[in-house]
Amino acid sequence: MRVAILGATGAVGRTMLQVLEERGFPADELVPLASERSRGHTIPWRGRDWTVDVPAPEAFRGVDIALFSAGGSRSREWAPVAAAQGAIVVDNSSAWRMDPEVPLVVPEVNGRRAAERPRGIIANPNCSTIQLVLALEALRRAAGLTRVLAATYQSVSGAGQKGIEALRAELRGESPTASPFPAPIAGNVIPWIGPRDAAGWNEEEDKLRNESRKILELPDLAVAATCVRVPVEVSHSIAATVELGRALTVPEARAALAAMEGLEVTPDERDPLPRALAGRDVVQVGHVRLDRDLPRVLHFWVVGDNLRKGAATNAVQIAELLASA
Amino acid sequence: MRVAILGATGAVGRTMLQVLEERGFPADELVPLASERSRGHTIPWRGRDWTVDVPAPEAFRGVDIALFSAGGSRSREWAPVAAAQGAIVVDNSSAWRMDPEVPLVVPEVNGRRAAERPRGIIANPNCSTIQLVLALEALRRAAGLTRVLAATYQSVSGAGQKGIEALRAELRGESPTASPFPAPIAGNVIPWIGPRDAAGWNEEEDKLRNESRKILELPDLAVAATCVRVPVEVSHSIAATVELGRALTVPEARAALAAMEGLEVTPDERDPLPRALAGRDVVQVGHVRLDRDLPRVLHFWVVGDNLRKGAATNAVQIAELLASA
Repeated sequence: MRVAILGATGAVGRTMLQVLEERGFPADELVPLASERSRGHTIPWRGRDWTVDVPAPEAFRGVDIALFSAGGSRSREWAPVAAAQGAIVVDNSSAWRMDPEVPLVVPEVNGRRAAERPRGIIANPNCSTIQLVLALEALRRAAGLTRVLAATYQSVSGAGQKGIEALRAELRGESPTASPFPAPIAGNVIPWIGPRDAAGWNEEEDKLRNESRKILELPDLAVAATCVRVPVEVSHSIAATVELGRALTVPEARAALAAMEGLEVTPDERDPLPRALAGRDVVQVGHVRLDRDLPRVLHFWVVGDNLRKGAATNAVQIAELLASA
Repeated sequence: MRVAILGATGAVGRTMLQVLEERGFPADELVPLASERSRGHTIPWRGRDWTVDVPAPEAFRGVDIALFSAGGSRSREWAPVAAAQGAIVVDNSSAWRMDPEVPLVVPEVNGRRAAERPRGIIANPNCSTIQLVLALEALRRAAGLTRVLAATYQSVSGAGQKGIEALRAELRGESPTASPFPAPIAGNVIPWIGPRDAAGWNEEEDKLRNESRKILELPDLAVAATCVRVPVEVSHSIAATVELGRALTVPEARAALAAMEGLEVTPDERDPLPRALAGRDVVQVGHVRLDRDLPRVLHFWVVGDNLRKGAATNAVQIAELLASA
């Protein structure tokens, strides 16, 4: 099996290579693709060096699965080309996520949707959305779901390698040369991820709403988010509040969350922390409590590595569904 | 007028001295009090050096106003002593806040309550609560208020000088000797402020609920918070969601917030940021938007310097009410 990675030198692309290797993904050949700048560099993978090329129609010839993580404009350009060459594209950008002919897949939640892909493209959801919907799906299965509110604490690696480098430079006392953030991020928190629309919502906040609704197949679910960048390198955290269809006790809610594949519930007094989750595939939930005033309202804290389950691992899990189909 | 400061060498105490000086508070004499460790040290204030003493009944003799910021147990011990000596105590700890005979005052919201103090004690609210209730009161005046949800992004100085030192030590690559946090805070966020009760709520989360209800005199208001420590030195940020009594448009909500004394609304595309608010007395609100799904629900972001308006400045404002009465 031949696997292509578009964006092989980025933060998510490199994690994809690592996850493919760790999970023993059944691929024999790698086609690493990136921008002109990286052309000719080699990438070690499974004991061999693979030469980075730039995307071109020929590059996708004979490719079975193409994992894309090179931004929306490259995805819009190259996903149809790769699909026309017979590859199935698993795209990590936001370009195709809301296309009705493109399934948006979190394997534990709606893995079966990966089989319906008229364009030959499957979209990997937004990083915060993936970890949140794991918890939402668990609670929906147990008690139904009528409303979701999320405040996020998103790490700088969500903005790619540049985000990590900007934070590190600032912490060294330097001015980062190309910060992806609208203000200094060291010693700061910034409620601005993605451009803002006329109604005042940032793009990331809308992604969380639209993608959660699509994945859960609850098109009218009330979802509102405040998305905030924090000076953490890896792992996103989310303070979530949900209104359930019927009341659950805390032990029932914890049991429902623990029953979900991919999700772990931490012991009562040990909340999940982003630094501890970095490098892990599991998403952890903790600090589960019932609202003191409102019936059927539950609060919890959910943390996951945005480069792994929030991006690379989820994409590789989708590729595994395809490889085993 | 003679003013005593208990906790004069702490992060809030030092800010109190600075704010008293900046605002030209009409005091002639300072009685700086702290723990045994600081006894005999001198503190420069208004061009003179004042010698730090330890609290004792005699220390409060002749004191008109005593500003306390030395933790709950010292407040419980010394506030009645100072009051018995004739001082009016403005206490920044949580010791007296929920006492029905102690007013809990944010001058812009309920300044008139400072006059009713049968114990001779007035409580200064929790730092996050102060900045949040300014916005809540503004919206309540315009449209009524039925529900509040808050996710906080609280700076390390909320845990005092020790909190600042722990973050700085960690950022230098050292292990802090006495971190007040349950986990490393550099490159992390920690949803744990104060001890946790059997229902899973942390103390800070309950303070926000109980104190907001008391200050707003809305004893049944639904309030729920997730309180989180972030690696920021000074200024707390809050992602807030409120359900109003009647619908407001965004311009109406912004106008209502801007009309509130002590509150500033930032232009649409310029959200308040904690680093920018550090050292300022004003509380800023931005990122105001209407829920896309639910009627009468409004989301916003509110930021304030927790050492100033969240503690020292609010206490000095209360002292000003007393001095002018």
